[in-house]
Amino acid sequence: MKVRVDVMLKNGVLDPQGEAVRHALGNLGFEGVEGVRQGKVIELDVAEGTSEDTIRDMCEKLLANTVIESYQVHMG
Amino acid sequence: MKVRVDVMLKNGVLDPQGEAVRHALGNLGFEGVEGVRQGKVIELDVAEGTSEDTIRDMCEKLLANTVIESYQVHMG
Repeated sequence: MKVRVDVMLKNGVLDPQGEAVRHALGNLGFEGVEGVRQGKVIELDVAEGTSEDTIRDMCEKLLANTVIESYQVHMG
Repeated sequence: MKVRVDVMLKNGVLDPQGEAVRHALGNLGFEGVEGVRQGKVIELDVAEGTSEDTIRDMCEKLLANTVIESYQVHMG
């Protein structure tokens, strides 16, 4: 069973990587790029019947740093 | 206008980060995790009317390493 987890920095948390990308896009001549935020997408291949609670437990314990990151779980 | 770009390693390309996460989940006692693939999600805030071609050009030039990565563009 496939599960997708998106992990993004919480709003208000400085995103140096996103800033670097925004800056680089400007240098490459791309105009009108007002903001860039970069996060992780994790695709999990788990046993059938794995519950969303188990996936959230994985996020809380490992996949996301919940102090500065928020996550969204997209089951199967 | 918000645009989301998902960047993942192409199938067949070794994903050491995904393997490390899979291994760590096992160590934390999570069973049945058969595979993990990790990629990037990039949220762009661009000027209204920016075309998908421009976003794809950004991907080709900067956001994705198209030798080993594939990308998906999700407009607005």
